[in-house]
Amino acid sequence: MLSFENDYSEGAHEIILKRLIDTNMEQLSGYGTDHYCETAKEKIKAACGCEDAEVFLLTGGTQTNQIIIDTVLAPYEGVIAAKTGHVSTHEAGAIEFTGHKVLELPQKDGKIQAADLKNLLETFYGDGNYEHMVFPGMVYISHPTEYGTLYTKKELENLSEICHEYKIPLYMDGARLIYGIAAEETDVTLKDIGKLCDIFYIGGTKAGLLCGEAVVFTEKTMPAHFLTRVKQHGALLAKGRLLGVQFDALFTYDLYLKIGKNAIETAAVLKNGLKKAGYEFYIDSPTNQIFIVIDNGQLKELQKHVTVSFWEKKDDLHTVIRFATSWATRMENVYKVLEVLQGL
Amino acid sequence: MLSFENDYSEGAHEIILKRLIDTNMEQLSGYGTDHYCETAKEKIKAACGCEDAEVFLLTGGTQTNQIIIDTVLAPYEGVIAAKTGHVSTHEAGAIEFTGHKVLELPQKDGKIQAADLKNLLETFYGDGNYEHMVFPGMVYISHPTEYGTLYTKKELENLSEICHEYKIPLYMDGARLIYGIAAEETDVTLKDIGKLCDIFYIGGTKAGLLCGEAVVFTEKTMPAHFLTRVKQHGALLAKGRLLGVQFDALFTYDLYLKIGKNAIETAAVLKNGLKKAGYEFYIDSPTNQIFIVIDNGQLKELQKHVTVSFWEKKDDLHTVIRFATSWATRMENVYKVLEVLQGL
Amino acid sequence: MLSFENDYSEGAHEIILKRLIDTNMEQLSGYGTDHYCETAKEKIKAACGCEDAEVFLLTGGTQTNQIIIDTVLAPYEGVIAAKTGHVSTHEAGAIEFTGHKVLELPQKDGKIQAADLKNLLETFYGDGNYEHMVFPGMVYISHPTEYGTLYTKKELENLSEICHEYKIPLYMDGARLIYGIAAEETDVTLKDIGKLCDIFYIGGTKAGLLCGEAVVFTEKTMPAHFLTRVKQHGALLAKGRLLGVQFDALFTYDLYLKIGKNAIETAAVLKNGLKKAGYEFYIDSPTNQIFIVIDNGQLKELQKHVTVSFWEKKDDLHTVIRFATSWATRMENVYKVLEVLQGL
Amino acid sequence: MLSFENDYSEGAHEIILKRLIDTNMEQLSGYGTDHYCETAKEKIKAACGCEDAEVFLLTGGTQTNQIIIDTVLAPYEGVIAAKTGHVSTHEAGAIEFTGHKVLELPQKDGKIQAADLKNLLETFYGDGNYEHMVFPGMVYISHPTEYGTLYTKKELENLSEICHEYKIPLYMDGARLIYGIAAEETDVTLKDIGKLCDIFYIGGTKAGLLCGEAVVFTEKTMPAHFLTRVKQHGALLAKGRLLGVQFDALFTYDLYLKIGKNAIETAAVLKNGLKKAGYEFYIDSPTNQIFIVIDNGQLKELQKHVTVSFWEKKDDLHTVIRFATSWATRMENVYKVLEVLQGL
Repeated sequence: MLSFENDYSEGAHEIILKRLIDTNMEQLSGYGTDHYCETAKEKIKAACGCEDAEVFLLTGGTQTNQIIIDTVLAPYEGVIAAKTGHVSTHEAGAIEFTGHKVLELPQKDGKIQAADLKNLLETFYGDGNYEHMVFPGMVYISHPTEYGTLYTKKELENLSEICHEYKIPLYMDGARLIYGIAAEETDVTLKDIGKLCDIFYIGGTKAGLLCGEAVVFTEKTMPAHFLTRVKQHGALLAKGRLLGVQFDALFTYDLYLKIGKNAIETAAVLKNGLKKAGYEFYIDSPTNQIFIVIDNGQLKELQKHVTVSFWEKKDDLHTVIRFATSWATRMENVYKVLEVLQGL
Repeated sequence: MLSFENDYSEGAHEIILKRLIDTNMEQLSGYGTDHYCETAKEKIKAACGCEDAEVFLLTGGTQTNQIIIDTVLAPYEGVIAAKTGHVSTHEAGAIEFTGHKVLELPQKDGKIQAADLKNLLETFYGDGNYEHMVFPGMVYISHPTEYGTLYTKKELENLSEICHEYKIPLYMDGARLIYGIAAEETDVTLKDIGKLCDIFYIGGTKAGLLCGEAVVFTEKTMPAHFLTRVKQHGALLAKGRLLGVQFDALFTYDLYLKIGKNAIETAAVLKNGLKKAGYEFYIDSPTNQIFIVIDNGQLKELQKHVTVSFWEKKDDLHTVIRFATSWATRMENVYKVLEVLQGL
Repeated sequence: MLSFENDYSEGAHEIILKRLIDTNMEQLSGYGTDHYCETAKEKIKAACGCEDAEVFLLTGGTQTNQIIIDTVLAPYEGVIAAKTGHVSTHEAGAIEFTGHKVLELPQKDGKIQAADLKNLLETFYGDGNYEHMVFPGMVYISHPTEYGTLYTKKELENLSEICHEYKIPLYMDGARLIYGIAAEETDVTLKDIGKLCDIFYIGGTKAGLLCGEAVVFTEKTMPAHFLTRVKQHGALLAKGRLLGVQFDALFTYDLYLKIGKNAIETAAVLKNGLKKAGYEFYIDSPTNQIFIVIDNGQLKELQKHVTVSFWEKKDDLHTVIRFATSWATRMENVYKVLEVLQGL
Repeated sequence: MLSFENDYSEGAHEIILKRLIDTNMEQLSGYGTDHYCETAKEKIKAACGCEDAEVFLLTGGTQTNQIIIDTVLAPYEGVIAAKTGHVSTHEAGAIEFTGHKVLELPQKDGKIQAADLKNLLETFYGDGNYEHMVFPGMVYISHPTEYGTLYTKKELENLSEICHEYKIPLYMDGARLIYGIAAEETDVTLKDIGKLCDIFYIGGTKAGLLCGEAVVFTEKTMPAHFLTRVKQHGALLAKGRLLGVQFDALFTYDLYLKIGKNAIETAAVLKNGLKKAGYEFYIDSPTNQIFIVIDNGQLKELQKHVTVSFWEKKDDLHTVIRFATSWATRMENVYKVLEVLQGL
């Protein structure tokens, strides 16, 4: 049985695992105060070109979104996000749990449009009644989006400009960021992100770590007593080393670039094969997630050999499914899947 | 200067005020345990035809929505509402403040459609992934809506049926309920509401009380230790008598019907006059709120004599404004306004 | 049947009620933007000697404590209070409901001691581990306390000094403040409070209003977008006039002083009578609450004629009860009660 | 430099690490649905003698306390705990963050007393006023406590009995549980805990895991949609395998017993050496935490060679410090420390 279900099916990338093994018996101080956390942060800052940034290491994606949004927003503020954003749909209300509304914008291929953002902000402040409403206090985008799509540099610049005009931070959910910057079609680099976003996180869980997400406050805007607030959210890891060692490894000798590349290359072959085999694409994604429409009968057959993600019902006869590649995907398995798909 | 800005510009209806004066020096127990609260509740139950209901008196509308939604929902549930619902837009995030998401549905004339509701619920439970999402735990409707429109009995029956099928309560925000049941065009009575809704509140603030909203749990489904939870929300009034005496008066000799009738009759004359004067209606409302589109120049002139509500910008040259009548509106003032409007 | 159960058994003081009647049909703007709210605030500032203060009118006591504490504290901060403070014990967890811990200090006659406060703060900052703890962000005191006792000016100065040293606000719950400043034994004036506290509220509910509490931020430290946050807490009254008119009346011609004086004078006669009759006092209170220990048999007899508050069980044979006088207490009823008490 | 600072200074026990390595490239489903989570849960249930229990794996201790307390309590309930309980003092207000008060009881050697618990509950329900108070909804104990002390079986039985009488669950924080059951002096087994507690968790972080805590609901009382609520708290790990594989290893061939034994044996030697060297014990702890009082000058000297935990200032000349042993402590290092201590 092959799995293309998601990009977190395996444990850790071998180099990362090796670093955990090598450092295992070192006695280190807790709660992220160890030297591996320190060097990991420095390496991340260097990679992002944000020497003045502040970095904090957390454990999971929803946790990270919740903590960033809750601690950066004022209590009377909400976060603007695409209707399809992860925070809007698939976090079980983790944002509202901390008291903040998600102010939804329409989406196109999973992305928000600068014009819609501008319109929301203008209407809000134009309406004399705004003191009875939730203040828009932050813009959330995901890159890649939930559909595997990417913002262009120009699009990011436009969003960034509007945010600065209204003095609200632009926050990027980078759960799959390393796959975004590895995409062939993209003109957005990690350094661009470091320049255009106020806050973003680099996902580790989907990038070959056992767990871990690295939050970057590009302009030293980490909220006061952030460690205390992380603790208050129940998210402060005692053995912070687990995050420090892994992120240190991910950002040593550009491992994150290699990991990203493997996912993109295997996805490209898979996408090409699907195209040749005549499958309809649900969306055109340049990263490691591929969405196709499949006949329900064929899907049933496929699932005898391969695990994929159910995405949504297209109509009574067809289903949208997702293939995900990752750091761990072996090309030979892509060929095997294509073989299965051609035989349906 | 005439005011048609809203339906809470004056103090209390004279009969209600008189009851407050007459009972003022009686020594009564606190927190809603006095006999006026008791008789008020009984009279409300009788008027709604819900002899088995439980009634609780609160102070304001947003407060009531917040408390009902927070205490009735499980912590992992959200409330379904129209995108234009009061809880979605004009309560400063009071629902999210208590940890619950507002799950927005499209609206038509301020109303949600049974088909959209059914679709949301079917999609939610059809998607195997729902444990990562906010559970739909209640349906919120306002009647009259924020646009002064009304559900038909058939529409309420359809919503009620879907709610029962999915075992979630149907909750009606009745901030202006007495104006809804007084409308000429409506086929919905207070007793219908008592039958079709699981929870609703009858607004007092907009119905001639100094303050006060009466919540009705039609099937004795008041959450356990409700008084404690009201207290915990900071909403338990020490002098509960203030609410008891007023609601007792409102439901004595059908005062609520008379109050409703005055608002509807004055609105009808105003609407008729506006029609004759050729004004464009923004929406066709059968209750005490009237929305028209007006030329910005004319609006400026109008505002020299009359206070109205700004609703929204229509385009660069036109504005949507709202006139509201109430228990306190005198017919002679309607004529005066019409005179002004005709002269613009 | 006579009631000495509490100081909120009647409706409104006649002068206050008259003002409500006189202004009833004025058309006023909502949400506290009317001119009565404005003049009420100005009169309160003048009475407190805080011309630069900001004042906000709210509806109830627990609501006020909740909103002040929640909006003034940072999310990682808690409020320091006596173990017997109202926020610690009798608000159904309204403070914790908004995410803040009540950091309890020991009490003496309902009051916290400067030495204990200093010790708490020194220990907190002395402990290198404080980032894992709740930060002390405010000091809450009640004056009069829940036992009717009063801080001396010297005590307030000491607390104020410590607060300033640690840069945390001193907040006074003045639910019964007008009875505190009317006490014969006190050396604390309203202007002293205006000088020594950073935030305090003047209770209206227990001072002859139907409802209402006036919050004073003595140094213009009202949190940003306070109206929005009040709305978000469900506490913004549509007919703000109800609060404005009443507080305007309370602070016109020093009505608040007269109201306070009546309660104190009737309490003094009652206290004197109890002393002569040989009753044991549970605590020595100089304000309008009197606590005595009574034999259970006598209590049963007493309750045939008078309603009082059960305070706590003293032992198997005795009970602590509370008598409360107020603006509404008539001297003749004090004499009647004393007659009953002497006859037990 | 030797570290006796805490029991989470190293990474993972070698057997646990080996299991992570061995299973690393298996493709497993996410969010705790993999077969390792399944077998881990079964093994835990067997070890606790609770075949009918429900088990859930979480990441950290504060997170676990927060989620258990928040999801098990009704919104109007608080949790009873010792004044020195971890939830009362060192979790940065994580319990209050979710809206619940910690109702503090006095402690003796870190433990609550049955008599105090009974008294709190009796007083609460005896007071007619309880609807204005926080309902006691759960009892929290830690075992070992924050002072390394242990409840006796009799003490647990008494607490359990009172909890059952009042129908509130007894919840045990077992962050260091494996060291508790390994203690020589204890008469409490894991099976006793499975019988006497309603909910408890077995700490993994301090027991040789990289991270992880296993919650046991002994009577299938896991709150509805628990996974959703964990997600809502931001605590659902994508790679649930990380927890499953480690706990599976910890409960295979009784590894948890061996791990506990090493900590206890090394602690015993350390304790004995300290006794012989004449050091004053701050508290008599039978587990892996040892508290002594040390002269500040000696402490300074000690810290040149050994890292220990500062506990608290005893007086101007003395400090309370803590030594912690663990699964990773080597006996030779205990001898080295004792050598240093004897030379001070």
